[in-house]
Amino acid sequence: MIDQPPRDDSDDKPHEECGVFGVFGHPEAAKLTYLGLYALQHRGQESAGIVTSNGNSFFQHRGMGLVVNAFSNGALDHLDGTMAVGHNRYSTSGTSTLQNAQPFVAQYQRGPLAIAHNGNLVNAFRIRRELEEQGMIFTTTSDTEVLTHLIARSRQEYLEDRLMDALKEVRGAYSLLALGKRVLVGVRDPSGFRPLWIGRIGDATILASETCALDAVEAEVVREVEPGELILVTDEGIKSIHLPMLAPHSHCIFEFLYLARADSVIFGETVVGRRMGFGRQLARECPADADIVVPMPDSANLAALGYAEESGLRFQFGLARNQYVGRTFIQPNQQDRSFQVGIKMNPIREVVDGKRVVLIDDSIMRGTTLRKMAKQIKLAGATEVHVRIAAPPTKYPCFYGIDTPTRQELIASTHTLDEVRQYIRADSLGYLSIEGMLKCVRYPYSFCTACFDGSYPIEFSGQNIQQLSIDFTRDRQR
Amino acid sequence: MIDQPPRDDSDDKPHEECGVFGVFGHPEAAKLTYLGLYALQHRGQESAGIVTSNGNSFFQHRGMGLVVNAFSNGALDHLDGTMAVGHNRYSTSGTSTLQNAQPFVAQYQRGPLAIAHNGNLVNAFRIRRELEEQGMIFTTTSDTEVLTHLIARSRQEYLEDRLMDALKEVRGAYSLLALGKRVLVGVRDPSGFRPLWIGRIGDATILASETCALDAVEAEVVREVEPGELILVTDEGIKSIHLPMLAPHSHCIFEFLYLARADSVIFGETVVGRRMGFGRQLARECPADADIVVPMPDSANLAALGYAEESGLRFQFGLARNQYVGRTFIQPNQQDRSFQVGIKMNPIREVVDGKRVVLIDDSIMRGTTLRKMAKQIKLAGATEVHVRIAAPPTKYPCFYGIDTPTRQELIASTHTLDEVRQYIRADSLGYLSIEGMLKCVRYPYSFCTACFDGSYPIEFSGQNIQQLSIDFTRDRQR
Amino acid sequence: MIDQPPRDDSDDKPHEECGVFGVFGHPEAAKLTYLGLYALQHRGQESAGIVTSNGNSFFQHRGMGLVVNAFSNGALDHLDGTMAVGHNRYSTSGTSTLQNAQPFVAQYQRGPLAIAHNGNLVNAFRIRRELEEQGMIFTTTSDTEVLTHLIARSRQEYLEDRLMDALKEVRGAYSLLALGKRVLVGVRDPSGFRPLWIGRIGDATILASETCALDAVEAEVVREVEPGELILVTDEGIKSIHLPMLAPHSHCIFEFLYLARADSVIFGETVVGRRMGFGRQLARECPADADIVVPMPDSANLAALGYAEESGLRFQFGLARNQYVGRTFIQPNQQDRSFQVGIKMNPIREVVDGKRVVLIDDSIMRGTTLRKMAKQIKLAGATEVHVRIAAPPTKYPCFYGIDTPTRQELIASTHTLDEVRQYIRADSLGYLSIEGMLKCVRYPYSFCTACFDGSYPIEFSGQNIQQLSIDFTRDRQR
Amino acid sequence: MIDQPPRDDSDDKPHEECGVFGVFGHPEAAKLTYLGLYALQHRGQESAGIVTSNGNSFFQHRGMGLVVNAFSNGALDHLDGTMAVGHNRYSTSGTSTLQNAQPFVAQYQRGPLAIAHNGNLVNAFRIRRELEEQGMIFTTTSDTEVLTHLIARSRQEYLEDRLMDALKEVRGAYSLLALGKRVLVGVRDPSGFRPLWIGRIGDATILASETCALDAVEAEVVREVEPGELILVTDEGIKSIHLPMLAPHSHCIFEFLYLARADSVIFGETVVGRRMGFGRQLARECPADADIVVPMPDSANLAALGYAEESGLRFQFGLARNQYVGRTFIQPNQQDRSFQVGIKMNPIREVVDGKRVVLIDDSIMRGTTLRKMAKQIKLAGATEVHVRIAAPPTKYPCFYGIDTPTRQELIASTHTLDEVRQYIRADSLGYLSIEGMLKCVRYPYSFCTACFDGSYPIEFSGQNIQQLSIDFTRDRQR
Repeated sequence: MIDQPPRDDSDDKPHEECGVFGVFGHPEAAKLTYLGLYALQHRGQESAGIVTSNGNSFFQHRGMGLVVNAFSNGALDHLDGTMAVGHNRYSTSGTSTLQNAQPFVAQYQRGPLAIAHNGNLVNAFRIRRELEEQGMIFTTTSDTEVLTHLIARSRQEYLEDRLMDALKEVRGAYSLLALGKRVLVGVRDPSGFRPLWIGRIGDATILASETCALDAVEAEVVREVEPGELILVTDEGIKSIHLPMLAPHSHCIFEFLYLARADSVIFGETVVGRRMGFGRQLARECPADADIVVPMPDSANLAALGYAEESGLRFQFGLARNQYVGRTFIQPNQQDRSFQVGIKMNPIREVVDGKRVVLIDDSIMRGTTLRKMAKQIKLAGATEVHVRIAAPPTKYPCFYGIDTPTRQELIASTHTLDEVRQYIRADSLGYLSIEGMLKCVRYPYSFCTACFDGSYPIEFSGQNIQQLSIDFTRDRQR
Repeated sequence: MIDQPPRDDSDDKPHEECGVFGVFGHPEAAKLTYLGLYALQHRGQESAGIVTSNGNSFFQHRGMGLVVNAFSNGALDHLDGTMAVGHNRYSTSGTSTLQNAQPFVAQYQRGPLAIAHNGNLVNAFRIRRELEEQGMIFTTTSDTEVLTHLIARSRQEYLEDRLMDALKEVRGAYSLLALGKRVLVGVRDPSGFRPLWIGRIGDATILASETCALDAVEAEVVREVEPGELILVTDEGIKSIHLPMLAPHSHCIFEFLYLARADSVIFGETVVGRRMGFGRQLARECPADADIVVPMPDSANLAALGYAEESGLRFQFGLARNQYVGRTFIQPNQQDRSFQVGIKMNPIREVVDGKRVVLIDDSIMRGTTLRKMAKQIKLAGATEVHVRIAAPPTKYPCFYGIDTPTRQELIASTHTLDEVRQYIRADSLGYLSIEGMLKCVRYPYSFCTACFDGSYPIEFSGQNIQQLSIDFTRDRQR
Repeated sequence: MIDQPPRDDSDDKPHEECGVFGVFGHPEAAKLTYLGLYALQHRGQESAGIVTSNGNSFFQHRGMGLVVNAFSNGALDHLDGTMAVGHNRYSTSGTSTLQNAQPFVAQYQRGPLAIAHNGNLVNAFRIRRELEEQGMIFTTTSDTEVLTHLIARSRQEYLEDRLMDALKEVRGAYSLLALGKRVLVGVRDPSGFRPLWIGRIGDATILASETCALDAVEAEVVREVEPGELILVTDEGIKSIHLPMLAPHSHCIFEFLYLARADSVIFGETVVGRRMGFGRQLARECPADADIVVPMPDSANLAALGYAEESGLRFQFGLARNQYVGRTFIQPNQQDRSFQVGIKMNPIREVVDGKRVVLIDDSIMRGTTLRKMAKQIKLAGATEVHVRIAAPPTKYPCFYGIDTPTRQELIASTHTLDEVRQYIRADSLGYLSIEGMLKCVRYPYSFCTACFDGSYPIEFSGQNIQQLSIDFTRDRQR
Repeated sequence: MIDQPPRDDSDDKPHEECGVFGVFGHPEAAKLTYLGLYALQHRGQESAGIVTSNGNSFFQHRGMGLVVNAFSNGALDHLDGTMAVGHNRYSTSGTSTLQNAQPFVAQYQRGPLAIAHNGNLVNAFRIRRELEEQGMIFTTTSDTEVLTHLIARSRQEYLEDRLMDALKEVRGAYSLLALGKRVLVGVRDPSGFRPLWIGRIGDATILASETCALDAVEAEVVREVEPGELILVTDEGIKSIHLPMLAPHSHCIFEFLYLARADSVIFGETVVGRRMGFGRQLARECPADADIVVPMPDSANLAALGYAEESGLRFQFGLARNQYVGRTFIQPNQQDRSFQVGIKMNPIREVVDGKRVVLIDDSIMRGTTLRKMAKQIKLAGATEVHVRIAAPPTKYPCFYGIDTPTRQELIASTHTLDEVRQYIRADSLGYLSIEGMLKCVRYPYSFCTACFDGSYPIEFSGQNIQQLSIDFTRDRQR
């Protein structure tokens, strides 16, 4: 039985969107993909899927929930072949149903095709409307289906050329994998919003969102796919093709702040180094007269350690986290969510009692969790709670693949710093500056900071974005 | 948990294909459709689905197995709206997976569309290839998706006109329902292969494959949809439109012989009358010097009773049937099927011992079951077993919606009457003649008898039919 | 997921209670037991279980629902060993939960023990209270657990002697199987209420409730276990031991009337012969001036055929039955059961229109179904409906293993013949007499007719019976 | 579908055994218990169950897996009443099946009884054999059933007195809850091996294994149940009764080292304080000439921080942990476990490259995980890896409720310090001394250190322990 994991609406965090993983030329392609998706689980927990090819036929399985749930009961056994693409999803476009679970599989003139897509196409809605006007039908609400149509319409002979034809028409963020019967393609948008890596196990080629997935399958890390680069893997080897479209690089800074796993390397730099660096810079910009530095567990651990090291304050684990909190928690009483905070994390009285606490978090979306924890920490005896955020104020929604709240819901967008401070019941509040944040990366100009300053590197029609998420049919399919 | 019901490959019967049921204008549209599909369960046990519309949105649920299994756990509760189409499926085209379960739902220029289809389009494969060459993609292996594409490509404004455009291009058998946001359409092919009925509950309109489904929801039986007639149901009422294509009527005689339920009326006549009539005619054509007439339970009950009445021989229940035999029987040992006959039915010694038995069956496909039962009946003491078939020899496969074995597997196609008799170990064997069979219906010339004489009323390319069933991807989706 | 099949409270039939099946000395003991339970499915559809022994360890699986559901997903594979007992259950004592599903397995001084029990112990409640007073605990609400306690308390060395000790203390109906590590025991109560048979496959011994289960596994039918006989099967062979308790034989006549399968032989006579005989005797006792004889499908088929043959009236199938009606039907609207009749069976207008119909049923419990069908048959055009019941009026509940309604609910217990006739809306009503019924069996004095005349062959305290069914804990275990 | 979570046999950690939670007098007793079990999830992940009483009837649900899995699909809704006991289980005695899932429910003379037990009774096997000899039957392999028998045999009138009678006969570790129709009892063995707390929500009384569960339901923490104290909760209030048995206190030091949650208070002291203290003491006893201190995530975080603070070395997060690793991971290839380490945690190259690393873990059982991680850390560039264990060498198995490996498997039991060091491929290895460990707690003499020095405070027969785990029947029940 597959139940759709309920979105926890008190959750204050941006939801990561998707992880992709592909294999070419390995006898255990499905198993490697399973392990890779498992390592990329933090990028999407709503559904998971794997499509394999044995050169003649495609085999597929998709399921709701975590990878282990989606592939329970021997589902992996049927996935024959030496080529595979897999996908973890957190829906950023389209509703959360099995029908929308990726990889998206379709048959077109040249045979079967599977696409696994991380990102968001900002003009998907407009293209979809155009295609519908030309008589096309759509069976999902995902923007990936748009891509498949464009590929099918191309007059090119080879998948890579058809894909390039299609990509010329779309705009937005994408790190995507496409699987044909005997070909694996990986491509990254010219802005390079999302990461994508190349690895190798013997003669087999691996493509994955993050290096942690390459490590998980003990693959050798080859290099990052470049922005605007298409990697073509066939029996004849690997070929690199550059898309004709050019764009300034716009790496997603949120990958460093929150999304990527601590042990990954992306955009040419380590996540761990950036994340501790943000903490150190935050200590320089927003010092606090306090006794201890406490991270929100576990996402702010590195930033808090950086803050503590730079400030000289004592780093302490002041909040215990329930390690079994998952996306499937059944709130016994939907009306009464007051228990929820105590269920996820709990202040440790001995640590915070009588102390002036610097509480480090990695971002504020709605502020609800911080508000509750700041209060709990005071109840546990802390004399002061100084909240420090290892990122600038999040004021604008993301349209390039992260599922952030709308602008109205982003508290920093509608309230002053002091209003936010009052709301979260902190004695003081400090954010990292945009400039400070960018000091921590090697090439500051190559990052997208739209969620902080509204400078969207790729234009879009807000209306389109809105409308895209209107579901034409609520699928109760299980 | 949904398990795909294994096809019982020792089964000698043609598999019925599909049942359809539609509602317009009833507050409990989904519930009525559930009941209607339940009454039409004999027409397809592989998967079931319902799509509803509340005028703005579509809601859908599909599942594998019987209606009760597919809609367990409150799946019905979410299906909002006063309009619905439902479908029971036994795959005749496309593989048996949830992805192929109907109704087929897609979004096109004019909004969402759901199609429930009973029949088989003989030129679907060719059209599909053409559409693929024009750049269309396909997400299922069902011929119904072809129809949806044709509807989407039409330049007409209204669903009914688009559907008529689409139907002009396809050839074959179809009794299909189409649901738009505020419109229900039912249409029957010009040859009238499959039945389709109109019923009424108060102001609500019902469309159903057989009258037994109208009875099940206590609907008033209005009339049969005519061959080549399109019924358009909207808020403005019911409208009848005739398709411009003309064809001689070719009702499927197998509906009378085996497929339809005994209490249904189809093609203007009662099933029960035809079925008993076949038995009587059989008695006239193929008398037997015997003591008792025994039906293969329960499908030959009516023919056997007719045979007994006409011949004056004693009608007896000589075979006990396990009432719990379902499509989900797990053969404990896949290699050893010798138990299987005893599990389904068992001779009653007291009835057959010392008797000369006329064993009535409704058809012979491969002959395996009859062969085993004839032997068992002899072992139980019968002195002679005279097999009489209340249908002509089945020599040709059906391409209009029934899933018959291939010609090579049809024993009557490859063996003489006496060879068949020897194979099934009968003392004598007699079939109903085609002429005799047609004497039992009012308008003999209006029936398709292709499975007996190979006179296919609609041409097709055998290759296409073959290829259509090649699966481009084996879906393990649950 | 196992859902408890809802009891259909509009059902007018007595529910059969249990089927048992045992194997000693066959390498595929579990598979044979599965097939045997499958053939005995009509004796219990609520839960099924199999326990096997490989001489050292026990293996068990039990599940809710039909045998095929309870043993889905490879549950059979784990049941190692050459000895097995299996059980189909329809709860007559104790509530319907997995916890109460049989075989009941316990460990006692001498090792593990499994018991599969068909019947009902009328003094189980009193013994249970006594055992509780002596400090025993109970983990189910089934009377079988009482037996296990008594076996465990015995000071005898061997299972058969312990079982005999235990049986000396209990009174009631039982055909039960007990499995030890290397011993299979079958025993039938001295009154012989329920059937139990011995079969053979090569050197392996089979014990089963009915011969149809022996046929299903192609076992040779050896003989019926005698009332008061204990069959001991070990590596040294089969031994017959007679219980010291004596009692007049009291076979359950309802086994012939309704419960057993038509192809079984029980109590030394064929079911089919008795059932047709009841119909013939009914025709002699209660003739009707009518045109056709119609059975309630399928349980009254044989009686109706007997009635037709004796009366010279024409036998006709006048009601079509939905072959897919199972115990798992989800009534979409619990409040509105008006659809239910049409869903289960439906009159065939062509057959009954203008006819005076003799409608044969095998019993009347509450009368609700007959009432509805009589009306439907009239609506379908019948001019008269004469109901004939191939059994005497059921006035008293059964305490020996059949789950009949309480006396207040049995319509014949509280209403005159004419009141019942009016209630069921029949033009006339006739029952078989007790004497007439007993004329149809060879040894009339050896049958229990308590449900018709209240002559309970074994005394009991009504209060005990009542209290036994009080559930001490409602288990929601799945 | 509930699948039994496979034990990960490469796991180096002792498995916690059980968590218990009880409620008396709250309208949402089942919901509170669900939340409490959720907070105690770290104490047992194999099965979970809740039994409630409404004063007249018991209601129960138990399931395999995590609390959220065991109580999916509305199982909570049926659990009526204001009294409840709940249990999380990791089997230490008896096999892992639904049948053994707790709370154990039975009916005895005085009515229904539910028991939830954390601990292990060292003489359970002997008592069980005695009871079996007296004619008792057992339906589970759990030692809790022994207790229930003893309670049922007592001649006392009230549950608390019966329970005390029973406890006089058993020896071992227990923090257990017993629920009668209108009474909740909590009791802790005289040695006080396992924790048990009293909380309050308004007038309702809560009993729970750890304070973190009281925090989770926002209950006021009242006090710890004392060793040898029985807490009786009825409508008349709370009563404290002391068991007549006396014993020196023997708190389980492993609760501080590893088992309890960091934010709990147990045995009168905070877990966080002890855990950091162990790290500080370790730094004093086993200094290392190194650059950074890295914890095995997340169980050694506190000890590592303590070590870093005391040693002055830099604390660093050097290993990234996959937050989604659960007990349900499906090892794709059972033969090949080489992937497993990379899947659970991964060294962060930037942190450890070129560094001399002090790697802190909380214990060594088999040493397999440490061996793999030490190698990985070196591969990631560390020049030296100095392993420091914040506990003494674990040389003896626990018989009081923790599921440790057998003595043969405990590497410290069979190898010298240097052999262990070589095996785990560390440059140096240091353990905390027993004396040093005990310096970190207030009352050193009140702790059990048997797993380190073999001084078992309660005698037992090793044979019994062994035999107890022999399963008399392998249950495949789901």
